[in-house]
Order: sequence, then C-alpha cells, then structure tokens
Amino acid sequence: MTLPASPSSTLRLRPVGIDTFRENVVYLHRDCPIVRAAGFQALSKVQVGADGRSILAVLNVVDDARLVDVCELGLSEEAFARLGVAEGHEATVAHAEPPGSIAALHRKIRGERLERDDLHAIIADIAQARYSKVELAAFVVATNQFELDRDEVLHLTEAMIAVGRRLDWRREVGGGPVVDKHCIGGIPGNRTSMLVVPIVAAHGMLCPKTSSRAITSPAGTADTMDVLAEVALPFERLVAIVRETRGCLAWGGTAELSPADDILISVERPLAIDSPGQMVASILSKKIAAGSTHLVLDIPVGPTAKVRSMPEAQRLKKLFEYVAARLGLHLDAVITDGRQPIGRGVGPVLEARDVMQVLESHPDAPSDLRQKALRLAGRVIEFDPDVRGGEGFRIARDILDAGRALERMHAIIDAQGRRAWTLEPAPLTHEVRAARSGVVTAIDNLRIARIARLAGAPQVPDAGIDLLKKLGERVEAGEPLYRVHARFDADLAFARDLAGADGGFRVGEAAELPHEFASFATLGDAL
Amino acid sequence: MTLPASPSSTLRLRPVGIDTFRENVVYLHRDCPIVRAAGFQALSKVQVGADGRSILAVLNVVDDARLVDVCELGLSEEAFARLGVAEGHEATVAHAEPPGSIAALHRKIRGERLERDDLHAIIADIAQARYSKVELAAFVVATNQFELDRDEVLHLTEAMIAVGRRLDWRREVGGGPVVDKHCIGGIPGNRTSMLVVPIVAAHGMLCPKTSSRAITSPAGTADTMDVLAEVALPFERLVAIVRETRGCLAWGGTAELSPADDILISVERPLAIDSPGQMVASILSKKIAAGSTHLVLDIPVGPTAKVRSMPEAQRLKKLFEYVAARLGLHLDAVITDGRQPIGRGVGPVLEARDVMQVLESHPDAPSDLRQKALRLAGRVIEFDPDVRGGEGFRIARDILDAGRALERMHAIIDAQGRRAWTLEPAPLTHEVRAARSGVVTAIDNLRIARIARLAGAPQVPDAGIDLLKKLGERVEAGEPLYRVHARFDADLAFARDLAGADGGFRVGEAAELPHEFASFATLGDAL
Repeated sequence: MTLPASPSSTLRLRPVGIDTFRENVVYLHRDCPIVRAAGFQALSKVQVGADGRSILAVLNVVDDARLVDVCELGLSEEAFARLGVAEGHEATVAHAEPPGSIAALHRKIRGERLERDDLHAIIADIAQARYSKVELAAFVVATNQFELDRDEVLHLTEAMIAVGRRLDWRREVGGGPVVDKHCIGGIPGNRTSMLVVPIVAAHGMLCPKTSSRAITSPAGTADTMDVLAEVALPFERLVAIVRETRGCLAWGGTAELSPADDILISVERPLAIDSPGQMVASILSKKIAAGSTHLVLDIPVGPTAKVRSMPEAQRLKKLFEYVAARLGLHLDAVITDGRQPIGRGVGPVLEARDVMQVLESHPDAPSDLRQKALRLAGRVIEFDPDVRGGEGFRIARDILDAGRALERMHAIIDAQGRRAWTLEPAPLTHEVRAARSGVVTAIDNLRIARIARLAGAPQVPDAGIDLLKKLGERVEAGEPLYRVHARFDADLAFARDLAGADGGFRVGEAAELPHEFASFATLGDAL
Repeated sequence: MTLPASPSSTLRLRPVGIDTFRENVVYLHRDCPIVRAAGFQALSKVQVGADGRSILAVLNVVDDARLVDVCELGLSEEAFARLGVAEGHEATVAHAEPPGSIAALHRKIRGERLERDDLHAIIADIAQARYSKVELAAFVVATNQFELDRDEVLHLTEAMIAVGRRLDWRREVGGGPVVDKHCIGGIPGNRTSMLVVPIVAAHGMLCPKTSSRAITSPAGTADTMDVLAEVALPFERLVAIVRETRGCLAWGGTAELSPADDILISVERPLAIDSPGQMVASILSKKIAAGSTHLVLDIPVGPTAKVRSMPEAQRLKKLFEYVAARLGLHLDAVITDGRQPIGRGVGPVLEARDVMQVLESHPDAPSDLRQKALRLAGRVIEFDPDVRGGEGFRIARDILDAGRALERMHAIIDAQGRRAWTLEPAPLTHEVRAARSGVVTAIDNLRIARIARLAGAPQVPDAGIDLLKKLGERVEAGEPLYRVHARFDADLAFARDLAGADGGFRVGEAAELPHEFASFATLGDAL
C-alpha cells in the first residue's frame, strides 16, 4: 500500500494550446505527485484554483513532459481564459465537489418537478461551465423525457435570460416595438428571416435578429447569411449595426445573449433532441435577451415537419404564448404549411441564391418563399401601432417590389462585413428523376435535409439540393425532380446512394395530395 | 465565401501522450487544411482511418505545432492503441456518421421498447467506443427513466456478455458448479466476499470472483483487497490463479469480461444512477462472463440501503431470477438486513482489518461480519451436490474456525501478488459523540459513507470510519459513536464539518428500533 503525500502543494499554471470548446480540460502529468497522491484518474472532475479564482475541469493525464511537466498544471484554451490567471502563477487542484445544483438534476432524473430556484441554480451552473458533458446530457434527456410543465419552462427561460447579457433598445425606439421573427425550424430552404428583416427594417422598425447555425439541418439562417456577410459579430459591433441599419442577420452564438442555451445546444445536437420545453426556453430566452418586445413565431405543420398535427401545434403555440406573456413579450404565433421545403434551394449557397432572387424580383424567384416572407413580414409590420390590422402584407409587398428591401439588405451586408460571394452551386451534380408519371403528392423534409447534408451542406456551403418540382406539380416518368450538388466525389456518391434508396418524393394522383394543416394561407393577405 | 479544398488528402499519424481514458480524442492543428475544408469544430465527432482500420473520435483543435503539426493527426493514447496502426502511417479523417445504433437510442429516448437486436447493436457500439460521453449519458438516463422491461434487461445482459471475453472452467470442474457471491452494494463495510471466497475455495469449490472498485461508496471489494494484494490482473494471470487456488479476489475492470459495462459505469458514476435494469445486466453479465454457473446474491434492505422496502426487494429479486434463469445461471438471491453498516471499519484499510480479524478468529473480530459471511458461504456451499440442504453454515464455520479460510486467503494473496501491508488506520482522528444517552436506533448508511469519503476513502486507503457502536447498543451522552480517520487536515475538517451537521446516528429509546426487513437471519443456520 502506497500512502499518498500531502496534496496541498502547488503547481505552476500553463496554457495548453488545445481548443476543447465548452469543456474545461486540465492536463496533469502522470508523475505529478498530486495526481498520484489524490488518486486522480483520467476524466475525474477536479477543481482548479489560483489567485482566489477557481474553475471546474475534466482531467486528462499526460505522459509527455513536453505538454506539461510534472510541476505544471495545464489548462485548455477556454479553461485558461475562464480562470483568468497569468501563466506561471501558482495553482492548486483538488477533487471537485459536484456543482450545487446536481441534487436538483438527480431529482429531475427521478421524475420530480423542479422549482424556480432549482432551474435557476442548474442554469447558472451550466452557464459557468460547471457541468460535465455527461451531466449536461443527463439534464437534456431527463427534461425531454419527463416533460417540463409550463411553469418549469417559464423558469427555465427566465434562468437562461438571467445568466446572459441583455440588450436594451429603449434609447433607439422609445416606447416603440423592438421586433423579431423566428421559425421553430425543420423545413429545408425556409429562409424567410433573410427577407423579413430587410423588409421590416426598411419600414423603419428595429429588428435585432440573431440566428443559429444548422443543428441537424443542411443550413441555418446563420449559415446562409454567412455566404453573403460576416455573421460572427462581437456584441458591440452587433449593437452598432442595428443602430445604423435597424436590422441585422447575425449568429447568436457569439453574442453572449444566452450562454447556457449555447452549451445545451452542443449536447442536444448530437442527441437530436428538441423537446417542446427546451425549444420554447431556447427561442424565447434569446429573443428577450436580444431586447425584442414583439415576436412573430412561425410554427410549420406537416407530416415530416417538427410538428405533425394541428393539436400538437396548438399545444406548442399555447406553451409559447404562456411563457411569452409571463415575460412581457408580445407574441404572434402563426401555424404555417410545413408539408414541403420552402423555395427551391437547400444548402447555404442555394438558399442565399433564392433569397437574393426574391429581393431582386428576379423572374426565377421562388414564389412560395416570396409569399411566405411577405405574410410574415406583414404580421411583424402590424406590430407598428400606426398600421391598421390587415394592412401589413400590402406594406411589405410594396417595400419589396420597390427595391427598398434589397437596398436595406445590402446595407446590412455591408455593415456586417460583405463577403466576395458567387451564388453558383457546387459543380458535381446528380439528378433524381421520377420513376412514374403523375403529380408530386409528398416531399419528405427529413429525407431532403439528409440528402443535402450528405452532399456536404452546410460545411460545404455550395453543396445541397435544387428542387425542380414541388407539391401538386405534374411530372413525367424520367423527368428530374431535383438536382444534388456536391464538391467532392465521395459526398456526391453518399448523397446519390441515399437518394437511390428513397429520394424523398412521392409521385401519385392529385387526389392523394395531403391537405394543408395550416390556416395561415387563408388569412386576409391574398391581396 | 471560401471554398474548401478536397478533404481526401492524408495526414501522418502521431500518438499524443494524453490519457483520455475511454474517450478517443483526435488532435488536429487549426491550420490543417482538412480541418478548415471540412468545417470541423472542436468536439466534432470524426472518423479516423488508417491502413484499412478505423475508429470514431472526438476532435480537439490544437493551436500549438509542438503538440501536432499541420500535417499530423494526433491520437490520444487509448485511441492510438485502439486504431493499432504505426506512428507516421498515412491517416484520413472525415465527418463521422453516427453509429448504426443511434436510431435505436433515439427511440429509447422517446420512450419506446427496444428489441433484442437494438440492444445488441447499442452495446456493440458502446464496447467499440463508438459512443460519445453525451450519447452514453443519454442511454443511461433514458434506460433509467423509461424503465427497461424484463426482456429488455435480458437482452441487455446477453449483449453485454456477447461483447466481452468469457471464461470456461469446464476443464477444471467437469460438470460441477463454478460459484460466486455478489452483493448489490450500498452497505458500508459489507466485505463478506473476502471471507466467502476463501471459505468456499477451501471447501474445494471453484470461485473466480471479480469485484468492482468503489463507485459512490468509500470502498469496493477491489479497493479493500488492493490493500492486501495486487487486484489489477491480466486475464491470463487471473485464470492461472483460480486454477491454482480455486479462488481469486480480483478487480473485474481489467479482465475484459464486460467492456461495455465498464464504459457505462464511467457514466453512471458521476450521475449516481443505478437503475434496476442496469444493475441486473451489469452484475449478471460479469458473473456469466467469468464462467460462473451458480451465484448467491445478497440484496440488503433497509431505510438507507439501495433497496428500501420488502416489495421493492422482491421485485428486484424476481428480475434477477428471471434473467439468470434465461441465461442458465443458478441463482440464490437472499434478502438481508441492510439497516446499518456491516462490521466496524469503513474504508479500505479499516475493512481489510475487519476481514483479517474474522479470518484470524481475533477476539475483536466483528461478529456481524462473521455471521453474515458464514451464512452466505453456507448458501454457496449448498450448491455442492454432495452437501445436504441446511448443512452449509456448519461446514463454512468449521472451515473458518479451523484456520483453513485464513490459509486459503494467504494463498490467494500470494498468488495475486502480496503487498507490504500495515492495517493501521490513518493518524488524524476525530470522534463523533452521542448528544444524549439512550439506545442507537438508526445508522444512516449514506451519511456514514459520505463522511468516510470526505475523510479520503477510498483514494486515501487508510482513511475512513471506525464504528464503535451499532444498532441496539446502549450509549451514554458524550460517549464516542465512531472515530473518523484521515491523513490530511483538510480531509478531516471536511468530514468533521459534515458529521457536525448530521453524524448519521440516531440515539433514542429501544422501542424506536426499526424492525429487520429481512427474513434471512431466521433461516435455519443459527446452529
């Protein structure tokens, strides 16, 4: 039996040039007396202290003295920055006590309801990087399985706002609305934000839109906007741009608005978990933190959308409305047609092409994208106290048709930092053709998204899918339904194989067309 | 927009001297063209290929060319070993497709029942390190929340056996039994295995016992045995030792018997999850893999034990019996008294002292540990077809009292590799005293375990608790109830503070003593 020496001795702090993203990692040499004394093992959770500050980190044991020496305490890049103490400073390491909120996490795992204080404590610990990946995953799965009730969702949302920065536009708008538009996702090509923002900004409304990157989709608004302009903007730049142009289309991740949500998403993504409670908290916390007072929310419904039935859509809508109302956010949640992709392009470059065509009133511009964007922009514009109910659509259309939205989009692009773009899709192509003649009766959003991802989107921005037929259109046997674009042979082969197994289109008789779930299209905006 | 270059170019393989335990980590330089082209981010899951072999790994992005150069692909130690290709060899890296069983995991997260093939696929992927920590945590939480039904538990157990090595003792025992004894845990000081193994081995039975290290307790059998002998034995050594001495007391983790379970435990531990299904699969898969044909299972019941009521104990017993029967394992599950710790010592050295005192028939030997071990050993001995029912206890007692168990224990210790031990507890002490006079009416197993852990156990092997009073014993106000041993001032202070808040003992009137749940003590072995 080897008896350990005192673990109270100190080590010298050293940054290790490894980016471990949100996970703090500490590197200690295997022969470090403290490692041996305290019985640390790889992946132990430890507390690192220096100069009165401390962080929790996961231990990696090092066998190479060039990385860290036996008397050194190495920290991964973000961990070193988070601790905020200079290199060479004395540092201590000890077994970490679990973060204070772990007892509440265990109660949630057992299926209990959490109180306001529990959720605030959990989110504070998450935002301060005190949760390991394993604990994060447990929180995400547990709150997915034992569904959060509406007050738990409210408190989760509140807590997520509390740990981030919050923008305040009162100086800019006085008592007027700060507007935003958001979609719950799941519909390929649904890039209405990139149209709504310049339209409502041109109308004079303040719209500090932040978007996310693709989680499981072939492109998020941030990925598509990234084709045209810089989207990773420091907080102060973002504020200045919105002041200047009344709008922005930035990535929310670097804006520090909802740090806990950012961390949770890094776990939800690989698990493909998107529960109603987490969705509501994630969306509303970011909107409120961005200073929005009025939000139009797009909830698409369809057989392969995130929400598959009207009752489910109504439940989700009411959950959004409950939480928004409690937090003082004016919410107009609209249930839309989610039976198929919107527009033609799927993938960053192809979607950016569609958006620019609509803004430029190009003859090839996809009319469904144009119509949906005008309807949503109209709803946002009706938040303007000077606009009569039912007038929004017409105002939005006039702004678009007069080229004022295009002009505003260029202003936003220049303000964020214009890229030298070409909107040419990737050169390697494969056409997926109809096996029979008839009418397109179904397009599987999930399948189209998956094929576009295999083709390389969003990492390869000009990869993706160009849809040539949509629901209800007539096709002849052998006629192309869509074209896959890829940059690499292997990507094209993967996408082609998946499309070969099931291309995501169904061709049949017109009578088989699924009815449109949403009542959105029938609203009085078909002027 | 920067268009990526072809990601098909290759890198040179390089081991990086970092131990990341079960998680494969790949280190790529931020300026590596492949990282930039493919849009990899830190914590992306990637597939590394070389020489026709491949592994999945998590990406850490490196900014220091001394760790890995821009044309190198670094692998953490275990990942490098797992890939099994020489340094300097060409290697490729690509976005990882999720492991094949992820669809089944998602179904479990949604609450569906899994089929046999699903569970086999999940466990095979886990054993081959294809699951990230996040995915492992999701599996553990999901199977904990939507409790597995008994066929799911059976298939999980089967799958865990299938991915490991399996010992076969038929050459040693012919058609005779290969026996084992196991406890579900939760009772401090319950080190009966270290008595049962030498007793039944001395009776001539083959008992290839493997044990675990402490998960949330102050000592597992492997930790306590580690005080006396080497426990981390290579597979072939373990087999040779059992052949020679008919028994062993080894750590199961290095024996390759249930690799998937080892990985799952690394996630269950920080989450403090120990669901019935996972417990049954974990225990029975290891026993069957170790070649056992007959198992005595100890299920302690008490207000602070893992199992808190007789109905719960019966349900767990039946689940164990169902799975064991289907897998051809003879199981004798006994429900025992779990109202308080067993023996006096809590912590590796203190428990080893108790065990050796019982083996040596020392006058201070704790009689409850002796009695329980004899009863369990008796049950094991009754698996011997030549022993009459009810004779086991007497045979076990005769073996112990004749010194034959002690002799066998020394043989096992020598075979595994004797350590130079002293069974002196750590020098710093603190006595916890009774606040009033009366009778000890409750001892909180969890509280005692937690105080012993704060004192340093099991990492500091001679730290822990020495119990001076047990249930039903009379104490005077101010009389010591137990003594905390620690090696470091800080540890002692932590333990003292916790004991000060609540020492885990209740002193009251004799009438308040909780009744014993278990019927075990009344069985016909009180000879």
